Amino acid sequence: MTADPRPARPTLLGQNQYGKAENRVVRVVRDGATHRIKDLNVSVALSGEMDAVHYSGSNANVLPTDTTKNTVFAFAKEHGIASAEAFGIHLARHFVTSQEQIHRARIRIEEYAWQRIGTTGHSFARGGQETPTTEVAYDGERFQVVSGLKDLVVLNSTDSEFWGYAKDPYTTLRETHDRILATEVTARWRFSWTGDPAGAEPPAWEESYEQVRGHLLDAFAGTYSLSLQQTLYAMGSRVIESHPGIDEVRLSLPNKHHFLVDLEPFGLKNENEVYHAADRPYGLIEGTVLRDGADARIPVTD
Amino acid sequence: MTADPRPARPTLLGQNQYGKAENRVVRVVRDGATHRIKDLNVSVALSGEMDAVHYSGSNANVLPTDTTKNTVFAFAKEHGIASAEAFGIHLARHFVTSQEQIHRARIRIEEYAWQRIGTTGHSFARGGQETPTTEVAYDGERFQVVSGLKDLVVLNSTDSEFWGYAKDPYTTLRETHDRILATEVTARWRFSWTGDPAGAEPPAWEESYEQVRGHLLDAFAGTYSLSLQQTLYAMGSRVIESHPGIDEVRLSLPNKHHFLVDLEPFGLKNENEVYHAADRPYGLIEGTVLRDGADARIPVTD
Amino acid sequence: MTADPRPARPTLLGQNQYGKAENRVVRVVRDGATHRIKDLNVSVALSGEMDAVHYSGSNANVLPTDTTKNTVFAFAKEHGIASAEAFGIHLARHFVTSQEQIHRARIRIEEYAWQRIGTTGHSFARGGQETPTTEVAYDGERFQVVSGLKDLVVLNSTDSEFWGYAKDPYTTLRETHDRILATEVTARWRFSWTGDPAGAEPPAWEESYEQVRGHLLDAFAGTYSLSLQQTLYAMGSRVIESHPGIDEVRLSLPNKHHFLVDLEPFGLKNENEVYHAADRPYGLIEGTVLRDGADARIPVTD
Amino acid sequence: MTADPRPARPTLLGQNQYGKAENRVVRVVRDGATHRIKDLNVSVALSGEMDAVHYSGSNANVLPTDTTKNTVFAFAKEHGIASAEAFGIHLARHFVTSQEQIHRARIRIEEYAWQRIGTTGHSFARGGQETPTTEVAYDGERFQVVSGLKDLVVLNSTDSEFWGYAKDPYTTLRETHDRILATEVTARWRFSWTGDPAGAEPPAWEESYEQVRGHLLDAFAGTYSLSLQQTLYAMGSRVIESHPGIDEVRLSLPNKHHFLVDLEPFGLKNENEVYHAADRPYGLIEGTVLRDGADARIPVTD
Repeated sequence: MTADPRPARPTLLGQNQYGKAENRVVRVVRDGATHRIKDLNVSVALSGEMDAVHYSGSNANVLPTDTTKNTVFAFAKEHGIASAEAFGIHLARHFVTSQEQIHRARIRIEEYAWQRIGTTGHSFARGGQETPTTEVAYDGERFQVVSGLKDLVVLNSTDSEFWGYAKDPYTTLRETHDRILATEVTARWRFSWTGDPAGAEPPAWEESYEQVRGHLLDAFAGTYSLSLQQTLYAMGSRVIESHPGIDEVRLSLPNKHHFLVDLEPFGLKNENEVYHAADRPYGLIEGTVLRDGADARIPVTD
Repeated sequence: MTADPRPARPTLLGQNQYGKAENRVVRVVRDGATHRIKDLNVSVALSGEMDAVHYSGSNANVLPTDTTKNTVFAFAKEHGIASAEAFGIHLARHFVTSQEQIHRARIRIEEYAWQRIGTTGHSFARGGQETPTTEVAYDGERFQVVSGLKDLVVLNSTDSEFWGYAKDPYTTLRETHDRILATEVTARWRFSWTGDPAGAEPPAWEESYEQVRGHLLDAFAGTYSLSLQQTLYAMGSRVIESHPGIDEVRLSLPNKHHFLVDLEPFGLKNENEVYHAADRPYGLIEGTVLRDGADARIPVTD
Repeated sequence: MTADPRPARPTLLGQNQYGKAENRVVRVVRDGATHRIKDLNVSVALSGEMDAVHYSGSNANVLPTDTTKNTVFAFAKEHGIASAEAFGIHLARHFVTSQEQIHRARIRIEEYAWQRIGTTGHSFARGGQETPTTEVAYDGERFQVVSGLKDLVVLNSTDSEFWGYAKDPYTTLRETHDRILATEVTARWRFSWTGDPAGAEPPAWEESYEQVRGHLLDAFAGTYSLSLQQTLYAMGSRVIESHPGIDEVRLSLPNKHHFLVDLEPFGLKNENEVYHAADRPYGLIEGTVLRDGADARIPVTD
Repeated sequence: MTADPRPARPTLLGQNQYGKAENRVVRVVRDGATHRIKDLNVSVALSGEMDAVHYSGSNANVLPTDTTKNTVFAFAKEHGIASAEAFGIHLARHFVTSQEQIHRARIRIEEYAWQRIGTTGHSFARGGQETPTTEVAYDGERFQVVSGLKDLVVLNSTDSEFWGYAKDPYTTLRETHDRILATEVTARWRFSWTGDPAGAEPPAWEESYEQVRGHLLDAFAGTYSLSLQQTLYAMGSRVIESHPGIDEVRLSLPNKHHFLVDLEPFGLKNENEVYHAADRPYGLIEGTVLRDGADARIPVTD
């Protein structure tokens, strides 16, 4: 603890955090001739008793961001990387428990998948259609684990309509009963596990990822859609209904518009065959699906 | 109002919003042979009584995202674009007041600067070192205007030190008394103006932008820095102390590391002359500076 | 033909071309409930008798870029998209044969793969680890088809060495007998087919893509590498030896460095387990493999 | 020289090159309290007697890419960075003259501008609207220097027409006599200086950059445009006519379309005031302007 070093002026330090972002760690596990790879992008953010460094530049409470980087690489050796979530839990707990002035740690991780190629056992190609993500926060008492994915682009070439909407003087859109529905899914799901009571069994992180991904895809594909909001809710609720350990799903679904091209000037009839895939602007549909009665989310202040 | 159409299942709709993102509107004002240009990227997000569309796909309450796009372009003609903030206020108020099921609107705008070239009066080059941003939120009662900038890269080639920090077994960083300090500034500042009471005079938006930008640059340049956190606080507090109408400044400052290159193997002495500009990982320092006693920020739920 | 409108000045028009770039066309083929998708990004570049438009702004010889865009979309309906190569051939021939002032057309195409999800027959996720590319050029007599891929990231976690290299006073690199070898493959392969004599049977474009991709991966995985150049040549020659219809392979292989992290300061031994994946700088190895005695490549002047 | 180690197979090594790409070197020059900065991104590509490394993995002729990186940083100290061109000339000459198996070197450089901020003499903000580029090639006898710029976005809000173009059955574009003309200029200009005869005075590189940039902007602004091709030729010929030491200018000008928005459905008249700035597709106009009678360009084989 330091005495308040704030000079007598009318300003105050609010929420803050610091750490090393985007540490690109690759861990190879050699099981004889067969290798396995974990490839992560790890970002560390710490907060705690940081008034002095902001007010006067005293670094006594500042564990260097370089040290947080070193810790990421050292932990990849010491603890291995069973999953991004387990790795993030190790790191978050370490910073909060080993430095008393650090009260909260947040570890964000992107994971890059590799698929085997050839027959060597040590050859791989980057793969996967999407990027798995996780965010682990720890405040000394409870963990909050929010896993997710991004960059997952999906498309239904039919079974999507849009009509019956509100109209005002600026409305020119024509109703449609058959359109392409395409989006790039960003999803984040919060686990109810908090590590409390101590020793509470954590979820099987990597299995749950595959399951959630499957449910998101199935719900997208299987929903006859009257609006992208309806599809969003179907995706989120499918996850919660199927996973007792997940309490909240946040989805961000840009509507990647595919406009039917007018071919009549060329004497051609476009029977929902030829589309122009547009970039901007795009509809952006964002929503949260919650388990009824679940604990409130730990406030995230950034 | 609609009756709750939610089916009997254990899930619930949480925070949500929708709209058209990244509408690229360019407005030309012709004052004889002299033209002026405003070039904006406008994103609209609306929320309100949206249970039905999520639960059942009924679009009765959904003003199409296409309509929000049309409104952006029509308003550029009807109201002009005096400033990004004024344009955002027009739009936010319009959606909330004209559609009773819309309870909150958030308008995000990036602005692209153009500088005159040649002598024609109608010729321009994209310019400016940074991108001005603004976010206007309106809930039917009060506005919240948060302006800002991003992409502003700054560097001090001396007068920066880093030493006296906490050390643990993973610390290998050597202390330094002369380093390059470089960062890419993302700043957002919240105005105290809320439009309440009705008719309260708004700030001079564009003038305040130039002033805040100048204060950020001056504080960065003029602070002899013992840590990037100290520089951050100096930048934020300079803004608040200089602008009575600004209550909060949020800064995100990645530490763009410039590593001194070891030239000894080549028989050369590097006297703080030759640096390698690194990409990743990077320190990331984020913090908020508040005016003491200011009103709390309107909760932002996304 | 136009008279030379060039004013009497000391400059001359050299190589030039124009057209509409990045037409994003999506073609859906409905086979009952089962849909198929082709998703292309098509860029058109035309050249010919274009002196007048450059020298004086006379557009009489200029088919508008907007027309080339319309043609892309119309041809997706009229001819379908059997393959990117076949589609490019249709387009290139059309422009050169239908407009006498156009003497050469070059069509570049990127293709985005979609994989089926769910059981609907009309649901897809963007997939594939890499982006197939093709470039079709036509000069009125012969076609040149160069297909390829980009964004294919591959890695061998062992069986790569680097030693015995030239050394000079600036050499500090230590020799290694076990390193990670990783690269992001950009490959382009030129077919010997030119459409001449008329009616000469073209290759099976899509089958050859899968075969070439397989050979590139197999050669990368299966080569015990003493240098990335050796691996490059192995990849290119494997393709040419396996495909009688391919005369030339160009490869661009950035060496995506994975540096072994020094864990000794933490009392840990890094036995080729923990690596830092670096971004910049990177080695860049580029080379061409030719079939001995093959026809020279049509000069590409851009 | 090595004996041809190529195995008896039907393939042959063609054009090839290698080196370290994207070395990010920052050079600070301290003139008392006043500092100056040169900030470059340097890419090295070497070629020569490289058969053995491709055919068999023998690295005897391969100066490591790591060494080329070290050389960039060491030369920043040894020779300083008077200009990107002068720095590239030093590097290219060094590699070709110091390693007999290296027959050709190509150095590509991007430069990032910094502008002074504050009053400290050591404080800077990244600036400039565009990125200067240079490419120096050396084959042991002659240099070829091609300087340029990219990312320079310019716009005329009037004095641009487009009509009288060729029409075919796919043409739907309406002629216009007043449109926005906007483009993102990529320009490269080749100097006649080759260093031959030895000691021939080189151009004043940095002065010529400012002059060429000015001429490009003036020609863009001052040309009443009937087509973007006409503007392109005006820009290129202006440079050549004004600079006796420049023999060739290559320009790539994407037509950044600004579409007039139809506001009639909202009872508004759009008198060339409100535009939608589109992303894709875009027209792409590329052309070369040559000095009449100038030496042919040294062949560039990549």
